[in-house]
Parts: sequence; structure tokens; C-alpha cells
Amino acid sequence: MSESSVPPPLILVHRPSSLTYMADLLNRNFRVLTIPSSSDPLPIFLSRHASSIRAFVNIGRLPVTGELLSYLPSLEILVCTSVGLDHIDLAECNRRGVAVTNAGDAFSEDVADSAVGLLISVLRRIPAADRFVRSGNWVELGDFPLGSKVSGKRVGIVGLGSIGSLIAKRLKSFGCIISYNSRSQKPDIPYRYYPDILSLAAENDVLVLCCSLTDQTHHIVNREVMDSLGKDGVIINVGRGGLIDEKEMVKCLVQGVIGGAGLDVFENEPEIPGELFGLDNVVLSPHAAVLTAGSLNNVAEVALANLKAFFSNRPLISPAQLN
Amino acid sequence: MSESSVPPPLILVHRPSSLTYMADLLNRNFRVLTIPSSSDPLPIFLSRHASSIRAFVNIGRLPVTGELLSYLPSLEILVCTSVGLDHIDLAECNRRGVAVTNAGDAFSEDVADSAVGLLISVLRRIPAADRFVRSGNWVELGDFPLGSKVSGKRVGIVGLGSIGSLIAKRLKSFGCIISYNSRSQKPDIPYRYYPDILSLAAENDVLVLCCSLTDQTHHIVNREVMDSLGKDGVIINVGRGGLIDEKEMVKCLVQGVIGGAGLDVFENEPEIPGELFGLDNVVLSPHAAVLTAGSLNNVAEVALANLKAFFSNRPLISPAQLN
Repeated sequence: MSESSVPPPLILVHRPSSLTYMADLLNRNFRVLTIPSSSDPLPIFLSRHASSIRAFVNIGRLPVTGELLSYLPSLEILVCTSVGLDHIDLAECNRRGVAVTNAGDAFSEDVADSAVGLLISVLRRIPAADRFVRSGNWVELGDFPLGSKVSGKRVGIVGLGSIGSLIAKRLKSFGCIISYNSRSQKPDIPYRYYPDILSLAAENDVLVLCCSLTDQTHHIVNREVMDSLGKDGVIINVGRGGLIDEKEMVKCLVQGVIGGAGLDVFENEPEIPGELFGLDNVVLSPHAAVLTAGSLNNVAEVALANLKAFFSNRPLISPAQLN
Repeated sequence: MSESSVPPPLILVHRPSSLTYMADLLNRNFRVLTIPSSSDPLPIFLSRHASSIRAFVNIGRLPVTGELLSYLPSLEILVCTSVGLDHIDLAECNRRGVAVTNAGDAFSEDVADSAVGLLISVLRRIPAADRFVRSGNWVELGDFPLGSKVSGKRVGIVGLGSIGSLIAKRLKSFGCIISYNSRSQKPDIPYRYYPDILSLAAENDVLVLCCSLTDQTHHIVNREVMDSLGKDGVIINVGRGGLIDEKEMVKCLVQGVIGGAGLDVFENEPEIPGELFGLDNVVLSPHAAVLTAGSLNNVAEVALANLKAFFSNRPLISPAQLN
């Protein structure tokens, strides 16, 4: 057998210097043009090197704006490694006929595991308990304050997609009572549907946010929703920081308007309101819900499969809805 | 309707001063003789006041020794509020014909929730992530180390009773693969049975300890078991500290012989080996797996039901096996 004489396609890759995964996999299958993390402004690099590029793999969360797209006139596909695409100008991609793919279900299990972990951690005060023990307070003070029962809690899930469904499945095994809100009621789903988040908050003990951040969902959790959730209510956010009015949430947590929060994402991450650092009823996580070796393998496979499908004119594995 | 002219029975109660729960419930139903937390030696108080006592409610973990029992010659029933009875001389109770009841299933859900919470917390490094964010390291250092996937992990449960079964049910919904070790294989259980803990450790990624502490299970997790579990292996202990050879475990955690641990119980609690305080792969909890308001209500109901059954000659709700 002789090697094919056709050289593998050239793909453009952007990655933060800290994210080295997928490099081998891409290099084995394609010629790779990596955008250097040098002092060169990105537009200059792109206009010199990328005008004929058809496929762009965006590892991490580089914003893809209309301006950036204008330097990639031959672009046909943008492969993203995240589930959420709020950093991508999807309307402009649509206008230019650029297909966009996301991580599909690659992260779903890990994000669901993480959401449930945060929920138990807040209700049962696990990180606060760990601090209590490490600081010597168990010996000094004795009793640790009571936690709140997980079993039997009413949990309202905002966004019942791939991640939300896995969260529901897990929490059902704890005896939690599941309901949900999403753009429309899902057929064949046994959980109660609430058409608006205000009534979902009123009827539940915990809200879990795992929907996309869009113009419609920006600050979907506002002061009114938190008032409705009430003083023992807990918010878990594994979606995007912008889903919550963060300033109001901080006030509500400090004043006891709501009972607690488990937060993997923040409006201006990695910057976090300093008031949160002093609160024992809050569990903070550095946008790590997807960060396991297993997930990174999964997403690399999904990205590769999308690229291979694209270059052999087969349907994409995880195309994003562009409108 | 006239009130019954028979005065309610007199029961003896011991409670740590910090545990005030059940007081109302007991006072509404019985005449209560509470052992004072004064400087009087316990034997003197008991021999003066308790010689005709038939029922003793032991709230908390006061050791009930042969000597203590000798001051309660009329005792017929000892009602305990814990699941584990390693603080009770069961053989002596049996010899004296004293029935013993424990918390039954009152705590099972909360302990199972706590075990799963500890498991996710260790694998996904939730308290370490919380420390990372609170210390400002997210802004300073950027990346947080990858966690380990929960979904798909092989979990070996040591003790498949009420608590172990609920842990298995929960972890199955995460896609974990469950197996177990117990005194004998259970009929009609779909999980693989290992007759010894060494092979259970060899074939699993996580060991969850939720069996009773007895002479047979003391240090059931020794160095050999930890060697067998291996460098990525994780131990979760919601049973009793004495199930693990703690000195060896500390060495194994420090030297990387095992990968991590989530510990709610310790051999000499609240004293904890200081080496654990510096480890990020360990989650520490102050024997809090049962500590929710819901659980305390449940156990109060179970204790009351046992007392009522006893005084009306009906079968006990949660009798302990005495041999």
C-alpha cells in the first residue's frame, strides 16, 4: 500500500497556551497552522497566513467576532471545543455561510456530575466542613452546624438538554422531585414543566442552571426570581455567569434572601465579587465543570469527527443551531 | 374524654449538652429522668436514681459498658440514636436480656447522600477548587488541575445494608459500575459480589466503607488493601474510623500509594492526624454524614416508636442483632 499522495488539509488552530490537549490528534490527521501567542496582532497574522483557510478549530474561548471572521474569507467551518457558544457571533457565521460545531455531548456527563456535586456540597456544607476540620475547629468548637437534606428536595432545572437530562436522572436517584423550564415543553418527559422561571423558582427548593446564555436568557435569574426562590432556596450554576444578575445574587446571599449557591461560572470570571469569599453558604468553582481528562479526550474526538466529516462531505456530528 | 389515670412510664435519658433534639418529643410522651452533665460521677447518680429504670435512651455516643449496665439492674431496653453500636457492650446486653435498638434506617438517606457527596468532592476536587478560588489563585495562577471523571468509575461498596444499597442506587445513576463485599452474598442483588475486600480493592477505582465496626471489620482496610487499590484509588469512609488503619492510610496518601480519600470518621475523632490537613486530595468532614435537621427528626421518631412499642408489648421497630 502506498500513502495517499494528497496532502492532508490545512486547518487553523487557536488555543490558550495552557491548553495543550488535542495537539497530537490534530497533527496526526491534518496540517496544522497554529495561531502563535506572540505579540503580533491577530488580524495581521490572519491576513498574512489564513486567507485560504477553510476550517478553524477554536480551542478555549477566543471570541469570534464579525471582524475576526472578515480575515477568514474562505472559512467554511468553525469547530469549537465548548458547549456554550456565547463567545461566537453566530448570526455573522450564519450570514457568511460558516457552519459551527460545538462540543456536543462530550462534556455532558462531567458537567452533570459537577452540578450534582455542587448541589450536595452546598446543602451538606462539604467545603465548609472541610475548612472547619482543617482549621482545628472540630477540636476547639465541637459541633458543626446541621446541613440540609438532599433527599426529597424539589429541584427545578433550567434547560433540559443533554446536560439537564443527566442532572435530572442523577437527582431522581436521590429521591429529589424534578421539574424544569425550557423554551418549550419536551414531549415524553415525566418531569413537570413550568413555562416561566418565576413559577419554577416559587415551587422549588433548588434551581439548577444549565441552559445556553443568549439574549433571552441573560440575567434570567434576577432579583424577582431570587425573592420567589426564598430564604432556604439554593442556586446551582453550571451554565454561564451571565444567566444570573450577579450583583443582585451577592446581595441576596449576604442578606439571606436566598439560602446558598454553588457556582462554577461568573459574569466576569476569573474576577469574582469579593463578598462571596466570606460566605460559608456558597461553594465556588473555577469554571471546572468540564475539566477532567476524560472530558478532554471526549471533546477532542468530537472535534476530530466533525473535521473528518467536513472534509469528506458527510453530515457534521454536533452542528450548532445558527438561528 | 378523661385523661388516662396511669402516669406515663419513666425513662432515663443521657444526652451530650450540645444535642438538644428529641427533648420535647420525649417529654410529651414520658416522664424523663435526664442524667445531669454535672460533676457527680455517673455511677453515683445511677445507683441513687436509676435502679428501677426499665428503659434508657442514649442520645449521642456514651459508651455503655458492663459496669454501667450493672447500675441499671432493672433495665429491659436500651434505645440508641446511632446506626453503629460499637460504643455498646452488646454481648453484656445480651447476657442481661436487655434489648437494644439503633437508629434503624433513619439516617440512611443522609449518610448515602453524604457518601456520594464526598466521592464527587474528592474526584472532582470541589473543596480544593473552592480554596483555589477563595485564595485568589484563579486570578493569579489561572488553570486549576484536572479532576477525575465520576461517570463510569468502578465503585466497591463494603457493607451493602440499608446505607450501602442507597449509595449503590445513587451511583448507578452516574453510570458507575457497582460491586460489593459483605459477610455473605445477598440474594437478588444485581451487583457483583467479592467475598474478600482485597479482591474488591483490586478490581475497583473507589472503595466506599459503610459497614459496622466490629472485631471482624477493625482495620479491614490495611496497607495490603491500599496497595491493592492503587495509586489512583480513592477511599470514602462514612462508617467508623476504626475500619481503616489510619496511620497506614496517612502514609499511603502522603506517598501516593492511593489517590485520595473522603473521610467523615476517624480513629480518634475529633483528633485527626495533622498530615491530612496539608493534602488537597483529601476531603475531611466532622462526623457529619447524619447531621441534617431531617435526619434528627427521623431518628427521634424511630426512638419514640421503639419506646412506644416496648411499653405496649409490640415488636421493636429497629432491634439490634445482639449476637
